[in-house]
Amino acid sequence: MARVLVTGASGFVGRQVVEQLLAAGHEVHAACGRQVLDGPIVHQLDLLEPGAAAALVARVRPQRLLHLAWCAKPGVYWTSPENIGWVRTSLELLEAFQCHGGEQAVLVGSCAEYDWSGEGVCHEDSTPLLPATPYGRCKNATRELAELFGQLHDMPVAWARIFHAYGPYEAPGRLVPAVIGALLKGEPARCSHGEQLRDLLHVADVASALIQLAQGGVQGAFNIGGGQPIRLREVIEYLARQLNAEHLLQFGAIPVALNDPPLLIADNQRLLAQGWQPRFDLHSGLDDALAWWRGRI
Amino acid sequence: MARVLVTGASGFVGRQVVEQLLAAGHEVHAACGRQVLDGPIVHQLDLLEPGAAAALVARVRPQRLLHLAWCAKPGVYWTSPENIGWVRTSLELLEAFQCHGGEQAVLVGSCAEYDWSGEGVCHEDSTPLLPATPYGRCKNATRELAELFGQLHDMPVAWARIFHAYGPYEAPGRLVPAVIGALLKGEPARCSHGEQLRDLLHVADVASALIQLAQGGVQGAFNIGGGQPIRLREVIEYLARQLNAEHLLQFGAIPVALNDPPLLIADNQRLLAQGWQPRFDLHSGLDDALAWWRGRI
Repeated sequence: MARVLVTGASGFVGRQVVEQLLAAGHEVHAACGRQVLDGPIVHQLDLLEPGAAAALVARVRPQRLLHLAWCAKPGVYWTSPENIGWVRTSLELLEAFQCHGGEQAVLVGSCAEYDWSGEGVCHEDSTPLLPATPYGRCKNATRELAELFGQLHDMPVAWARIFHAYGPYEAPGRLVPAVIGALLKGEPARCSHGEQLRDLLHVADVASALIQLAQGGVQGAFNIGGGQPIRLREVIEYLARQLNAEHLLQFGAIPVALNDPPLLIADNQRLLAQGWQPRFDLHSGLDDALAWWRGRI
Repeated sequence: MARVLVTGASGFVGRQVVEQLLAAGHEVHAACGRQVLDGPIVHQLDLLEPGAAAALVARVRPQRLLHLAWCAKPGVYWTSPENIGWVRTSLELLEAFQCHGGEQAVLVGSCAEYDWSGEGVCHEDSTPLLPATPYGRCKNATRELAELFGQLHDMPVAWARIFHAYGPYEAPGRLVPAVIGALLKGEPARCSHGEQLRDLLHVADVASALIQLAQGGVQGAFNIGGGQPIRLREVIEYLARQLNAEHLLQFGAIPVALNDPPLLIADNQRLLAQGWQPRFDLHSGLDDALAWWRGRI
């Protein structure tokens, strides 16, 4: 049992992390911007406020840090100047964490750090880091600085690059909720051709991977993904079959964005070597998402 | 006349910047960690304290920012973890500056951002950025983030890469003061072979270059150097001649560091295009340094 600080605790991934840490018996401190959660010790604050992160860490003195907070507003976060504030806040957190006796930090990155124009299977060591967006550039800069900070202070800092998470509380505009939402309402689901291969992972498995990395003594970048290429068309058709709504699918109705690569998946060998195993496969994961959205739409 | 905030104002370059800004009639706010200066409005504070930079900027509301503060402790700054705190503080400053109506920021970088294993003449656009030290990596990360911040907010941010400054208040262990100090005391000046070609610039000219960049509407990276390769042996021999102490020179007494490149100079065309001209040539600059140290050793 450890004292753990989770930032972004009311977010899509954060709430799963908090739930699993509580279930494992840890003392969980949850930093949230807006919503208040049941269960953990909640610290409601604006982490972007200079000094707020350091003051929180000084109060909590966590042994482990899972830093998930970042700007995530759909349609905005890719190019928001707030990304730079999150670099600053991440450094402030990390410095305070080390200063107050922190033992293991896990920070969250993204597949957006990688060069997407390459072969599509991303390896932590060999795939070039060539982020195309302000979001990706700020994540990558944070990674570089966090890694250096860990080296200079001899403190383990793990960097978790999330690929494509789905599940409860996902933003409604994203693929899985958008398809489920349309079909549950009996409306057409307008999709692209759906031939893209992606690395979808249920958010509970993303959370368990982050917690695995927080065990202690873990350093460097880790791809967080299932490691299997999943055709988006297969996801969409599976959801439609479960809802008897295949007639509502409109493949090809939406163009594929120019920067949308045909293949983008994680080599997850480094994560697997940490002992992590996912709980869901694609079908059981989508069933879970479906059940959750059914009660809400 | 403008309201200007100078950080690192009591430092080697900072005090020259403050002096020249005051002489030009500006309202100068000087942020200093330790020493107090005469002339500007002094704000004594620890800029690394989270929130301190933002609070200062909110109080001063400067139109121009010249951010020179950084860790500079000789022998320590190349690898100090404090470099990461200076990245954070630089971002905090820049964000607050923009938020409170700032018009032109000038941040200070270093030739240590460049790949030193290349041809040795550094161009802002074409020389690879491949810093070999934590100091260089943190400067380069700050540059990337500051540049992005400027783009996203449409605020001009200039990045001044200083090469080799010398003059009053230089750290005593560095080349020019070390040679002068030894010779003034009648002690042997132990030197390397002295064949290295460097870009030496008097600190007053470094300061005037930074002020030139702060005029407004200036973006991107600028090499701050004289643009002329100067053999260190020539510097050392000139100083010795002025002091009638050539017999005290011991060339070859010290090995050259492995990572010390034979040639490292600035292409300064971009700076010259801004209208900057140096006041000192090598001899008049060294004479000035000599006169200053004479009164102090």
